[in-house]
Amino acid sequence: MIKVNENFLKLQAGYLFPEIGRRVRAFAQANPAASIIKLGIGDVTEPLCPAVIDAMHKAVDEMAAAKSFRGYGPEQGYEFLAKTIIDNDFAARGVSIDIGEIFISDGSKCDTGNIQEIFGLDNVIAVTDPVYPVYVDTNVMAGRTGSVKEGGRYEGIVYLPCTAENNFVPELPTEQVDIIYLCYPNNPTGAIATKAELKKWVDYARANKAIIFFDAAYEAYIKDSSIPHSIYEIEGAKDVAIEFRSFSKTAGFTGVRCAFTVVPKALKAYKKDGTAVEVNPIWNRRHCTKFNGVSYVTQAAAAAVYSADGKKQVKAIIDLYMNNAKVIRESLASFGYQVFGGENAPYVWLKTKNNMPSWDFFDMLLKKANVVGTPGAGFGAAGEGYFRLSAFNNLASVKEAMQRISKL
Amino acid sequence: MIKVNENFLKLQAGYLFPEIGRRVRAFAQANPAASIIKLGIGDVTEPLCPAVIDAMHKAVDEMAAAKSFRGYGPEQGYEFLAKTIIDNDFAARGVSIDIGEIFISDGSKCDTGNIQEIFGLDNVIAVTDPVYPVYVDTNVMAGRTGSVKEGGRYEGIVYLPCTAENNFVPELPTEQVDIIYLCYPNNPTGAIATKAELKKWVDYARANKAIIFFDAAYEAYIKDSSIPHSIYEIEGAKDVAIEFRSFSKTAGFTGVRCAFTVVPKALKAYKKDGTAVEVNPIWNRRHCTKFNGVSYVTQAAAAAVYSADGKKQVKAIIDLYMNNAKVIRESLASFGYQVFGGENAPYVWLKTKNNMPSWDFFDMLLKKANVVGTPGAGFGAAGEGYFRLSAFNNLASVKEAMQRISKL
Repeated sequence: MIKVNENFLKLQAGYLFPEIGRRVRAFAQANPAASIIKLGIGDVTEPLCPAVIDAMHKAVDEMAAAKSFRGYGPEQGYEFLAKTIIDNDFAARGVSIDIGEIFISDGSKCDTGNIQEIFGLDNVIAVTDPVYPVYVDTNVMAGRTGSVKEGGRYEGIVYLPCTAENNFVPELPTEQVDIIYLCYPNNPTGAIATKAELKKWVDYARANKAIIFFDAAYEAYIKDSSIPHSIYEIEGAKDVAIEFRSFSKTAGFTGVRCAFTVVPKALKAYKKDGTAVEVNPIWNRRHCTKFNGVSYVTQAAAAAVYSADGKKQVKAIIDLYMNNAKVIRESLASFGYQVFGGENAPYVWLKTKNNMPSWDFFDMLLKKANVVGTPGAGFGAAGEGYFRLSAFNNLASVKEAMQRISKL
Repeated sequence: MIKVNENFLKLQAGYLFPEIGRRVRAFAQANPAASIIKLGIGDVTEPLCPAVIDAMHKAVDEMAAAKSFRGYGPEQGYEFLAKTIIDNDFAARGVSIDIGEIFISDGSKCDTGNIQEIFGLDNVIAVTDPVYPVYVDTNVMAGRTGSVKEGGRYEGIVYLPCTAENNFVPELPTEQVDIIYLCYPNNPTGAIATKAELKKWVDYARANKAIIFFDAAYEAYIKDSSIPHSIYEIEGAKDVAIEFRSFSKTAGFTGVRCAFTVVPKALKAYKKDGTAVEVNPIWNRRHCTKFNGVSYVTQAAAAAVYSADGKKQVKAIIDLYMNNAKVIRESLASFGYQVFGGENAPYVWLKTKNNMPSWDFFDMLLKKANVVGTPGAGFGAAGEGYFRLSAFNNLASVKEAMQRISKL
């Protein structure tokens, strides 16, 4: 008899974004005249930049001729892209990464979801609260948790609350944890982690033989030059951290699909008997067995992001989004909201007034201002009473949304 | 302390194709003048067809303009592609598939590797021998096997030998199994399964509440009109089978990355207490949580495979490869080899003479004829004494390879 993986049955039914979609559709059907402005899901809106478009056309033409056609590429990605990544994202910031440490993939959602597979089921995982739901759900599926409890937390996971009180960077756990998921600049709070804060975590991991999964998908939005873009800017991090990067938000690749993961060769995990095992070859084996490389056209597109024109054009788009974030931040503050983030991240995280529950605020915004955002409670219990607005839209729509919110 | 998933340490070191690559590189370095012909790895050689190239250019241009730009698409794939697939691959063959049963992905290697995640670890899996290594290795990683035994077989897996004696279609297992991996047209043997043979497996699965993972990546190579292209052409298969399809070999997409999986809504798995659970929503949850959709440009390319021009152009390429297969089959037969496959699949499977071990035959072919093939033993113990030659090359190279083999 074919047995189902019963861990999947522990998952809560409503994933956040489908529920938002359901409410928006219902409202739109009941109010066909309403002009709805979406600042909800974290999807980019600007088209791909010309340097990327040119590179894609060129790559497509290469696929049309026998001499330049490319079939299966290396599962880990083409060297031309890996080398460009190393030079621009790491060497330029004083971080030395070996080409065998880069694993190019089709998305950070996949990578942050898959990475737990190579570690034992008996590891204790810690996540921030609020948190990107994929980190939690993939561990539930794998069987690293118990059932869900009231408030949506799962038994067996250590939740690290991030609130205004701790500036959205959590305290070290008081119990022993083995795997720590960190995301900075943060989704959903827009918070950043300073070098000193990241050092605290690297030191914890080194002292406790723990591992950090560092999601840096939003590093391109950092404006403050003192903030680290990579966890490897912290000394000793290569012994204890895996880093996830993505072109989705950096270069508008949400529909193009390219990301990469850095698994340092120095990183070790342990057998039950305490023997150290290198993690890099194990991830390599997983990557080569369950994945077959990224589309050549996509990899050519990603490489173009690092060309002189590509850098200029991508920066202009990020500046556009960050100007939106500024407008959102300043407008909301002037309406008396307490606001966070939006200075080094494309998300503004606001505190609702009078502790209004997040989903009530969502419904109010949708119904009275026809603006869609994301309820903080959807990211975790500690997000209750908070709300996320995304800067991914055009300036006119953002200004119109703020105008409408001002009247609430 | 971070614990590794010790199941990964059970995996055998040498994956087949890296080992072939190593031997070929060593030979090429020692013999720089040798002109090596590769009929080894199953990678296509012909460029993408014009209909696909045109669709890709058009899709790239859409990504360049704000009005037509596409960010995140549905994780399950765009409806325009899913509908085209349903009409052409299924409805046209009398099989009715619902749009919610199609999951578009970036490759069948990923899908056939990931599918086991949604089933319990206590299921007994059965694979053919020889077999595509991904089926086995992903189950080893998940912990569904014991250690590797002599001959490369793992404890806890039921191996179903496929040899000339049973026409490379295995007998039903004598012990109870829960998951059966079948691949027809077969990689590596090039064998096919008739309707009667597939019905035998569907009946077994229905009687034993087992599930069949049916890999149909090579269905486009079927020439004989009596052979089923989909397992759903067998009555009752929707209750017990998941089917995997790919554009890799159908349309030369090995470097483009597009495939799809059919998970029928009628398919059930069971909780330990015997309660039936629908499999489709569980795979949907896994797919949406650990995957983020296929590149829009790639999906537009895949849809073009089904256009009138696309069909004609793709068929011409398949005919070219199948003519190669015919040349390989007939040449080898005329040299006194016993040959199989190559009539409805792009692989010819030959029996070595005097039971020469597969790797010895590999070395002989490489050294004396400068031709690269794939040793049957690399696909499993029952592949010992067999050898795979792939039809993916141009006719001139295939003829030259046969010429050289004739002199051995």
